[in-house]
Amino acid sequence: MIDLCFAPTPNGWKISVMLEECGLDYRLNWVNIGAGEQFEPDFLAISPNNRIPAIVDHEPVGGSDPVSVFETGAILLYLAEKTGQFLPADLRGRTATTEWLMWQMGGLGPMMGQHGHFKLYAPERIAYATERYRNEVLRLFGVMDRRLADHDYLAGATYSIADMACFPWVQTYKRQEIDLADFPAVQRWYEELKQREGLRRGMAVGRDKINRNPQNDEQTRKVLFGIKDA
Amino acid sequence: MIDLCFAPTPNGWKISVMLEECGLDYRLNWVNIGAGEQFEPDFLAISPNNRIPAIVDHEPVGGSDPVSVFETGAILLYLAEKTGQFLPADLRGRTATTEWLMWQMGGLGPMMGQHGHFKLYAPERIAYATERYRNEVLRLFGVMDRRLADHDYLAGATYSIADMACFPWVQTYKRQEIDLADFPAVQRWYEELKQREGLRRGMAVGRDKINRNPQNDEQTRKVLFGIKDA
Repeated sequence: MIDLCFAPTPNGWKISVMLEECGLDYRLNWVNIGAGEQFEPDFLAISPNNRIPAIVDHEPVGGSDPVSVFETGAILLYLAEKTGQFLPADLRGRTATTEWLMWQMGGLGPMMGQHGHFKLYAPERIAYATERYRNEVLRLFGVMDRRLADHDYLAGATYSIADMACFPWVQTYKRQEIDLADFPAVQRWYEELKQREGLRRGMAVGRDKINRNPQNDEQTRKVLFGIKDA
Repeated sequence: MIDLCFAPTPNGWKISVMLEECGLDYRLNWVNIGAGEQFEPDFLAISPNNRIPAIVDHEPVGGSDPVSVFETGAILLYLAEKTGQFLPADLRGRTATTEWLMWQMGGLGPMMGQHGHFKLYAPERIAYATERYRNEVLRLFGVMDRRLADHDYLAGATYSIADMACFPWVQTYKRQEIDLADFPAVQRWYEELKQREGLRRGMAVGRDKINRNPQNDEQTRKVLFGIKDA
Protein backbone atom coordinates (compact mmCIF):
# COMPACT_ATOMS: atom_id res chain seq x y z
CA MET A 1 0.00 0.00 0.00
CA ILE A 2 1.17 3.52 -0.87
CA ASP A 3 -0.01 6.68 0.87
CA LEU A 4 -0.29 9.64 -1.51
CA CYS A 5 -0.19 13.05 0.18
CA PHE A 6 -2.19 14.99 -2.34
CA ALA A 7 -3.92 18.16 -3.39
CA PRO A 8 -5.56 18.68 -6.80
CA THR A 9 -2.81 20.57 -8.65
CA PRO A 10 -0.77 19.75 -11.77
CA ASN A 11 2.04 18.39 -9.58
CA GLY A 12 -0.40 16.29 -7.57
CA TRP A 13 -1.94 14.80 -10.73
CA LYS A 14 1.46 13.68 -12.07
CA ILE A 15 1.53 11.10 -9.29
CA SER A 16 -2.15 10.08 -9.23
CA VAL A 17 -1.78 9.43 -12.97
CA MET A 18 1.37 7.32 -12.46
CA LEU A 19 -0.21 5.28 -9.65
CA GLU A 20 -3.29 4.63 -11.79
CA GLU A 21 -1.22 3.78 -14.88
CA CYS A 22 0.84 1.31 -12.82
CA GLY A 23 -2.23 -0.22 -11.17
CA LEU A 24 -0.71 0.25 -7.71
CA ASP A 25 -2.88 0.24 -4.58
CA TYR A 26 -2.87 3.62 -2.93
CA ARG A 27 -4.87 5.74 -0.54
CA LEU A 28 -5.21 9.50 -0.58
CA ASN A 29 -4.09 11.69 2.30
CA TRP A 30 -5.61 15.07 1.53
CA VAL A 31 -3.37 18.03 2.33
CA ASN A 32 -5.29 21.29 2.51
CA ILE A 33 -2.60 23.59 1.12
CA GLY A 34 -4.86 26.66 1.29
CA ALA A 35 -5.13 26.13 5.06
CA GLY A 36 -1.37 25.58 5.47
CA GLU A 37 -1.42 21.87 6.34
CA GLN A 38 1.82 21.48 4.35
CA PHE A 39 3.66 23.22 7.20
CA GLU A 40 2.65 20.70 9.89
CA PRO A 41 5.52 18.64 11.40
CA ASP A 42 4.11 15.24 10.38
CA PHE A 43 3.99 16.35 6.76
CA LEU A 44 7.42 18.07 6.84
CA ALA A 45 8.97 14.80 8.05
CA ILE A 46 7.91 13.30 4.71
CA SER A 47 8.19 16.39 2.54
CA PRO A 48 10.75 18.83 4.00
CA ASN A 49 10.17 21.33 1.19
CA ASN A 50 6.52 21.77 2.35
CA ARG A 51 5.11 20.90 -1.05
CA ILE A 52 2.65 18.28 -2.25
CA PRO A 53 2.67 15.61 -3.50
CA ALA A 54 4.70 13.08 -1.51
CA ILE A 55 4.32 9.33 -1.05
CA VAL A 56 4.98 6.76 1.64
CA ASP A 57 5.55 3.26 0.31
CA HIS A 58 4.73 0.70 3.01
CA GLU A 59 5.99 -2.19 0.90
CA PRO A 60 9.33 -1.03 -0.57
CA VAL A 61 11.42 -3.37 -2.68
CA GLY A 62 13.59 -5.37 -0.28
CA GLY A 63 11.16 -4.89 2.61
CA SER A 64 11.99 -3.26 5.97
CA ASP A 65 10.69 0.18 7.01
CA PRO A 66 8.45 2.32 4.78
CA VAL A 67 10.17 4.64 2.28
CA SER A 68 8.90 8.21 1.81
CA VAL A 69 9.59 10.24 -1.33
CA PHE A 70 9.06 13.94 -2.11
CA GLU A 71 9.55 15.91 -5.39
CA THR A 72 7.45 14.64 -8.29
CA GLY A 73 10.47 13.80 -10.46
CA ALA A 74 11.91 11.59 -7.70
CA ILE A 75 8.52 9.95 -7.06
CA LEU A 76 8.08 9.15 -10.76
CA LEU A 77 11.57 7.60 -10.96
CA TYR A 78 10.93 5.67 -7.74
CA LEU A 79 7.63 4.21 -8.93
CA ALA A 80 9.01 3.45 -12.41
CA GLU A 81 11.94 1.55 -10.91
CA LYS A 82 9.68 -0.20 -8.36
CA THR A 83 7.33 -1.48 -11.04
CA GLY A 84 9.62 -1.69 -14.07
CA GLN A 85 7.10 0.39 -16.02
CA PHE A 86 7.19 3.63 -18.05
CA LEU A 87 11.00 3.97 -17.95
CA PRO A 88 12.80 2.07 -20.72
CA ALA A 89 15.52 -0.31 -19.52
CA ASP A 90 17.97 0.34 -22.40
CA LEU A 91 20.53 3.13 -22.01
CA ARG A 92 19.24 5.32 -24.86
CA GLY A 93 15.56 5.05 -23.93
CA ARG A 94 16.30 5.60 -20.27
CA THR A 95 18.46 8.64 -21.04
CA ALA A 96 15.81 10.21 -23.29
CA THR A 97 13.22 9.72 -20.55
CA THR A 98 15.30 11.37 -17.84
CA GLU A 99 16.19 14.24 -20.23
CA TRP A 100 12.54 15.13 -20.82
CA LEU A 101 11.56 14.45 -17.21
CA MET A 102 14.23 16.93 -16.11
CA TRP A 103 13.11 19.36 -18.81
CA GLN A 104 9.64 19.31 -17.26
CA MET A 105 11.00 19.60 -13.70
CA GLY A 106 13.38 22.47 -14.39
CA GLY A 107 11.60 24.24 -17.25
CA LEU A 108 7.99 23.61 -18.20
CA GLY A 109 6.73 23.24 -14.63
CA PRO A 110 8.46 26.21 -12.98
CA MET A 111 7.90 28.54 -15.94
CA MET A 112 4.19 27.68 -16.34
CA GLY A 113 3.96 28.13 -12.57
CA GLN A 114 5.46 31.64 -12.79
CA HIS A 115 3.29 32.56 -15.76
CA GLY A 116 0.20 31.35 -13.92
CA HIS A 117 1.19 33.34 -10.87
CA PHE A 118 1.62 36.66 -12.67
CA LYS A 119 -1.31 36.10 -15.00
CA LEU A 120 -3.87 34.75 -12.55
CA TYR A 121 -2.85 35.25 -8.94
CA ALA A 122 -0.56 38.21 -8.34
CA PRO A 123 -2.31 41.10 -6.58
CA GLU A 124 -1.00 43.58 -9.14
CA ARG A 125 -0.61 43.33 -12.92
CA ILE A 126 3.05 43.55 -13.93
CA ALA A 127 3.43 43.63 -17.71
CA TYR A 128 7.16 42.86 -17.81
CA ALA A 129 6.87 39.73 -15.65
CA THR A 130 3.76 38.42 -17.41
CA GLU A 131 5.37 38.87 -20.80
CA ARG A 132 8.68 37.37 -19.65
CA TYR A 133 6.99 34.14 -18.54
CA ARG A 134 4.56 34.02 -21.43
CA ASN A 135 7.47 34.22 -23.89
CA GLU A 136 9.26 31.48 -22.01
CA VAL A 137 6.19 29.20 -21.89
CA LEU A 138 5.62 29.67 -25.63
CA ARG A 139 9.29 28.90 -26.27
CA LEU A 140 8.98 25.69 -24.21
CA PHE A 141 5.81 24.65 -26.06
CA GLY A 142 7.75 25.19 -29.29
CA VAL A 143 10.55 22.91 -28.05
CA MET A 144 7.99 20.24 -27.12
CA ASP A 145 6.25 20.63 -30.47
CA ARG A 146 9.46 20.07 -32.44
CA ARG A 147 10.22 16.99 -30.33
CA LEU A 148 6.74 15.51 -30.80
CA ALA A 149 6.69 16.33 -34.52
CA ASP A 150 9.02 13.40 -35.15
CA HIS A 151 8.52 11.24 -32.05
CA ASP A 152 5.30 9.67 -30.79
CA TYR A 153 6.15 10.50 -27.19
CA LEU A 154 8.67 12.71 -25.42
CA ALA A 155 11.12 9.88 -24.75
CA GLY A 156 10.70 8.50 -28.29
CA ALA A 157 8.66 5.47 -29.27
CA THR A 158 7.02 4.68 -25.92
CA TYR A 159 4.82 6.46 -23.41
CA SER A 160 6.83 7.22 -20.25
CA ILE A 161 7.02 9.12 -17.00
CA ALA A 162 8.22 12.14 -19.04
CA ASP A 163 4.78 12.34 -20.70
CA MET A 164 3.03 11.93 -17.35
CA ALA A 165 5.10 14.77 -15.90
CA CYS A 166 4.15 17.14 -18.73
CA PHE A 167 0.49 16.28 -19.31
CA PRO A 168 -1.06 17.93 -16.21
CA TRP A 169 0.83 21.15 -16.92
CA VAL A 170 -0.06 21.20 -20.64
CA GLN A 171 -3.66 20.71 -19.55
CA THR A 172 -3.65 24.22 -18.01
CA TYR A 173 -3.28 25.73 -21.51
CA LYS A 174 -6.71 27.37 -21.58
CA ARG A 175 -6.27 29.27 -18.32
CA GLN A 176 -2.82 30.32 -19.50
CA GLU A 177 -4.32 31.45 -22.84
CA ILE A 178 -2.10 29.24 -24.98
CA ASP A 179 -3.61 28.21 -28.31
CA LEU A 180 -2.82 24.52 -28.76
CA ALA A 181 -3.55 24.89 -32.49
CA ASP A 182 -0.23 26.77 -32.69
CA PHE A 183 1.50 23.55 -31.55
CA PRO A 184 -0.03 20.79 -33.69
CA ALA A 185 2.28 18.00 -32.53
CA VAL A 186 1.60 18.85 -28.88
CA GLN A 187 -2.13 18.90 -29.66
CA ARG A 188 -1.94 15.46 -31.34
CA TRP A 189 -0.05 14.05 -28.31
CA TYR A 190 -2.45 15.71 -25.85
CA GLU A 191 -5.56 14.34 -27.55
CA GLU A 192 -4.06 10.86 -27.72
CA LEU A 193 -3.01 10.79 -24.07
CA LYS A 194 -6.46 12.01 -22.97
CA GLN A 195 -7.88 8.69 -24.23
CA ARG A 196 -5.75 6.59 -21.87
CA GLU A 197 -7.89 5.04 -19.13
CA GLY A 198 -5.24 5.19 -16.41
CA LEU A 199 -4.40 8.81 -17.15
CA ARG A 200 -8.09 9.73 -17.11
CA ARG A 201 -8.59 8.13 -13.72
CA GLY A 202 -5.51 9.86 -12.34
CA MET A 203 -6.51 13.26 -13.71
CA ALA A 204 -10.01 12.89 -12.18
CA VAL A 205 -8.70 12.61 -8.60
CA GLY A 206 -9.82 15.53 -6.43
CA ARG A 207 -11.60 17.47 -9.21
CA ASP A 208 -14.42 18.25 -6.75
CA LYS A 209 -11.97 19.85 -4.29
CA ILE A 210 -10.34 22.44 -6.55
CA ASN A 211 -10.30 25.99 -5.27
CA ARG A 212 -10.61 27.73 -8.62
CA ASN A 213 -10.06 31.24 -7.33
CA PRO A 214 -7.57 31.30 -4.48
CA GLN A 215 -6.79 34.91 -5.32
CA ASN A 216 -10.28 35.83 -4.10
CA ASP A 217 -9.53 34.64 -0.58
CA GLU A 218 -6.99 36.88 1.16
CA GLN A 219 -5.88 34.38 3.81
CA THR A 220 -5.48 31.55 1.28
CA ARG A 221 -3.46 33.82 -0.98
CA LYS A 222 -1.08 34.67 1.87
CA VAL A 223 -0.53 30.99 2.70
CA LEU A 224 -0.08 29.87 -0.90
CA PHE A 225 2.19 32.65 -2.06
CA GLY A 226 4.13 33.33 1.13
CA ILE A 227 2.92 36.92 1.28
CA LYS A 228 3.91 38.54 4.55
CA ASP A 229 1.77 41.03 6.45
CA ALA A 230 3.09 44.54 6.08
CA MET B 1 36.07 10.72 -24.41
CA ILE B 2 33.18 13.03 -23.50
CA ASP B 3 32.47 16.33 -25.20
CA LEU B 4 31.12 18.95 -22.79
CA CYS B 5 29.17 21.79 -24.44
CA PHE B 6 29.84 24.47 -21.90
CA ALA B 7 29.57 28.06 -20.80
CA PRO B 8 30.70 29.36 -17.39
CA THR B 9 27.37 29.44 -15.54
CA PRO B 10 26.10 27.62 -12.41
CA ASN B 11 24.46 24.98 -14.63
CA GLY B 12 27.64 24.55 -16.65
CA TRP B 13 29.76 24.10 -13.52
CA LYS B 14 27.51 21.32 -12.19
CA ILE B 15 28.83 19.14 -15.00
CA SER B 16 32.48 20.25 -15.07
CA VAL B 17 32.53 19.48 -11.33
CA MET B 18 31.02 16.00 -11.87
CA LEU B 19 33.44 15.17 -14.69
CA GLU B 20 36.39 16.26 -12.56
CA GLU B 21 35.11 14.39 -9.49
CA CYS B 22 34.72 11.21 -11.56
CA GLY B 23 38.10 11.61 -13.22
CA LEU B 24 36.57 11.21 -16.68
CA ASP B 25 38.38 12.41 -19.81
CA TYR B 26 36.53 15.27 -21.42
CA ARG B 27 37.09 18.15 -23.78
CA LEU B 28 35.34 21.51 -23.70
CA ASN B 29 33.20 22.78 -26.55
CA TRP B 30 32.65 26.42 -25.75
CA VAL B 31 29.17 27.72 -26.53
CA ASN B 32 29.02 31.52 -26.65
CA ILE B 33 25.50 31.98 -25.25
CA GLY B 34 25.73 35.76 -25.39
CA ALA B 35 26.25 35.51 -29.17
CA GLY B 36 23.38 33.03 -29.60
CA GLU B 37 25.44 29.93 -30.50
CA GLN B 38 22.93 27.83 -28.52
CA PHE B 39 20.42 28.34 -31.36
CA GLU B 40 22.62 26.79 -34.07
CA PRO B 41 21.32 23.54 -35.62
CA ASP B 42 24.35 21.42 -34.64
CA PHE B 43 23.86 22.37 -31.00
CA LEU B 44 20.05 21.98 -31.07
CA ALA B 45 20.50 18.40 -32.32
CA ILE B 46 22.23 17.67 -29.00
CA SER B 47 20.33 20.10 -26.78
CA PRO B 48 16.85 20.79 -28.24
CA ASN B 49 16.01 23.18 -25.40
CA ASN B 50 18.82 25.54 -26.55
CA ARG B 51 20.49 25.51 -23.16
CA ILE B 52 23.98 24.62 -21.97
CA PRO B 53 25.42 22.34 -20.74
CA ALA B 54 25.06 19.16 -22.76
CA ILE B 55 27.40 16.21 -23.25
CA VAL B 56 28.22 13.73 -25.99
CA ASP B 57 29.65 10.45 -24.69
CA HIS B 58 31.70 8.78 -27.41
CA GLU B 59 32.22 5.63 -25.33
CA PRO B 60 28.80 4.81 -23.87
CA VAL B 61 28.29 1.68 -21.78
CA GLY B 62 27.53 -1.16 -24.22
CA GLY B 63 29.31 0.60 -27.08
CA SER B 64 27.73 1.57 -30.42
CA ASP B 65 26.97 5.16 -31.44
CA PRO B 66 27.69 8.14 -29.18
CA VAL B 67 25.00 9.15 -26.67
CA SER B 68 24.15 12.82 -26.16
CA VAL B 69 22.48 14.13 -22.99
CA PHE B 70 20.92 17.53 -22.18
CA GLU B 71 19.48 18.89 -18.89
CA THR B 72 21.93 18.93 -15.99
CA GLY B 73 19.84 16.56 -13.84
CA ALA B 74 19.82 13.96 -16.61
CA ILE B 75 23.55 14.42 -17.27
CA LEU B 76 24.37 13.95 -13.57
CA LEU B 77 22.27 10.75 -13.40
CA TYR B 78 23.84 9.50 -16.64
CA LEU B 79 27.41 10.05 -15.44
CA ALA B 80 26.67 8.62 -11.99
CA GLU B 81 25.23 5.46 -13.52
CA LYS B 82 28.05 5.24 -16.06
CA THR B 83 30.75 5.39 -13.40
CA GLY B 84 28.95 3.93 -10.38
CA GLN B 85 29.94 7.03 -8.40
CA PHE B 86 28.13 9.70 -6.34
CA LEU B 87 24.73 7.93 -6.44
CA PRO B 88 24.25 5.34 -3.70
CA ALA B 89 23.23 1.88 -4.93
CA ASP B 90 20.85 1.08 -2.06
CA LEU B 91 17.17 2.05 -2.41
CA ARG B 92 17.08 4.55 0.45
CA GLY B 93 20.33 6.31 -0.47
CA ARG B 94 19.39 6.41 -4.12
CA THR B 95 15.94 7.81 -3.32
CA ALA B 96 17.33 10.53 -1.04
CA THR B 97 19.76 11.54 -3.78
CA THR B 98 17.10 11.85 -6.48
CA GLU B 99 14.82 13.77 -4.07
CA TRP B 100 17.42 16.47 -3.46
CA LEU B 101 18.60 16.46 -7.07
CA MET B 102 15.00 17.11 -8.16
CA TRP B 103 14.64 19.74 -5.43
CA GLN B 104 17.58 21.57 -6.97
CA MET B 105 16.26 21.12 -10.52
CA GLY B 106 12.72 22.24 -9.81
CA GLY B 107 13.26 24.66 -6.93
CA LEU B 108 16.65 26.08 -5.97
CA GLY B 109 17.91 26.48 -9.56
CA PRO B 110 14.84 28.07 -11.18
CA MET B 111 14.07 30.30 -8.18
CA MET B 112 17.65 31.58 -7.80
CA GLY B 113 17.58 32.13 -11.56
CA GLN B 114 14.45 34.25 -11.30
CA HIS B 115 15.78 36.18 -8.31
CA GLY B 116 19.02 36.84 -10.17
CA HIS B 117 17.10 38.03 -13.20
CA PHE B 118 14.95 40.56 -11.36
CA LYS B 119 17.73 41.65 -9.02
CA LEU B 120 20.61 41.92 -11.48
CA TYR B 121 19.47 41.83 -15.09
CA ALA B 122 15.92 43.08 -15.68
CA PRO B 123 15.84 46.47 -17.39
CA GLU B 124 13.41 47.82 -14.82
CA ARG B 125 13.22 47.38 -11.04
CA ILE B 126 10.04 45.57 -10.03
CA ALA B 127 9.69 45.39 -6.25
CA TYR B 128 6.95 42.74 -6.18
CA ALA B 129 8.87 40.28 -8.35
CA THR B 130 12.21 40.84 -6.62
CA GLU B 131 10.62 40.31 -3.22
CA ARG B 132 8.67 37.27 -4.39
CA TYR B 133 11.82 35.47 -5.53
CA ARG B 134 13.94 36.67 -2.64
CA ASN B 135 11.38 35.24 -0.20
CA GLU B 136 11.35 31.98 -2.10
CA VAL B 137 15.15 31.73 -2.23
CA LEU B 138 15.39 32.40 1.52
CA ARG B 139 12.72 29.75 2.14
CA LEU B 140 14.72 27.24 0.06
CA PHE B 141 17.97 28.06 1.90
CA GLY B 142 16.05 27.43 5.13
CA VAL B 143 14.91 24.01 3.84
CA MET B 144 18.49 23.16 2.91
CA ASP B 145 19.78 24.40 6.26
CA ARG B 146 17.38 22.17 8.21
CA ARG B 147 18.40 19.20 6.09
CA LEU B 148 22.12 19.82 6.55
CA ALA B 149 21.75 20.50 10.27
CA ASP B 150 21.36 16.76 10.86
CA HIS B 151 22.93 15.25 7.73
CA ASP B 152 26.51 15.67 6.48
CA TYR B 153 25.32 15.95 2.86
CA LEU B 154 22.00 16.47 1.14
CA ALA B 155 21.45 12.78 0.42
CA GLY B 156 22.56 11.80 3.93
CA ALA B 157 25.92 10.34 4.91
CA THR B 158 27.72 10.60 1.56
CA TYR B 159 28.61 13.31 -0.94
CA SER B 160 26.50 12.89 -4.10
CA ILE B 161 25.29 14.43 -7.34
CA ALA B 162 22.67 16.30 -5.26
CA ASP B 163 25.45 18.29 -3.58
CA MET B 164 27.14 18.93 -6.93
CA ALA B 165 23.85 20.22 -8.37
CA CYS B 166 23.38 22.70 -5.51
CA PHE B 167 26.94 23.95 -4.92
CA PRO B 168 27.35 26.21 -8.00
CA TRP B 169 24.00 27.89 -7.26
CA VAL B 170 24.75 28.36 -3.55
CA GLN B 171 28.03 29.92 -4.63
CA THR B 172 26.12 32.88 -6.12
CA TYR B 173 25.01 33.92 -2.62
CA LYS B 174 27.01 37.14 -2.52
CA ARG B 175 25.63 38.54 -5.77
CA GLN B 176 22.15 37.55 -4.61
CA GLU B 177 22.80 39.28 -1.24
CA ILE B 178 22.13 36.21 0.87
CA ASP B 179 23.95 36.12 4.21
CA LEU B 180 25.29 32.58 4.61
CA ALA B 181 25.72 33.24 8.35
CA ASP B 182 21.92 33.03 8.56
CA PHE B 183 22.19 29.41 7.39
CA PRO B 184 24.98 27.88 9.51
CA ALA B 185 24.55 24.30 8.30
CA VAL B 186 24.64 25.43 4.65
CA GLN B 187 27.75 27.46 5.46
CA ARG B 188 29.46 24.44 7.09
CA TRP B 189 28.61 22.28 4.05
CA TYR B 190 29.73 25.00 1.61
CA GLU B 191 33.11 25.50 3.31
CA GLU B 192 33.72 21.76 3.45
CA LEU B 193 32.86 21.18 -0.22
CA LYS B 194 35.10 24.06 -1.29
CA GLN B 195 38.09 22.04 -0.06
CA ARG B 196 37.44 19.14 -2.45
CA GLU B 197 40.06 19.01 -5.19
CA GLY B 198 37.72 17.73 -7.93
CA LEU B 199 35.07 20.32 -7.16
CA ARG B 200 37.68 23.11 -7.16
CA ARG B 201 38.97 22.04 -10.57
CA GLY B 202 35.42 21.85 -11.95
CA MET B 203 34.45 25.24 -10.55
CA ALA B 204 37.57 26.83 -12.07
CA VAL B 205 36.63 25.92 -15.65
CA GLY B 206 35.96 29.00 -17.78
CA ARG B 207 36.42 31.57 -14.99
CA ASP B 208 38.36 33.78 -17.42
CA LYS B 209 35.44 33.84 -19.87
CA ILE B 210 32.68 35.09 -17.58
CA ASN B 211 30.70 38.07 -18.82
CA ARG B 212 30.02 39.66 -15.45
CA ASN B 213 27.68 42.33 -16.71
CA PRO B 214 25.54 41.06 -19.58
CA GLN B 215 22.93 43.66 -18.70
CA ASN B 216 25.36 46.34 -19.88
CA ASP B 217 25.37 44.98 -23.41
CA GLU B 218 22.04 45.52 -25.16
CA GLN B 219 22.45 42.84 -27.82
CA THR B 220 23.63 40.20 -25.33
CA ARG B 221 20.71 41.01 -23.07
CA LYS B 222 18.24 40.48 -25.93
CA VAL B 223 19.76 37.10 -26.78
CA LEU B 224 19.99 35.86 -23.19
CA PHE B 225 16.57 36.99 -22.02
CA GLY B 226 14.58 36.56 -25.21
CA ILE B 227 13.67 40.24 -25.31
CA LYS B 228 11.96 41.12 -28.56
CA ASP B 229 12.41 44.37 -30.44
CA ALA B 230 9.42 46.66 -29.99
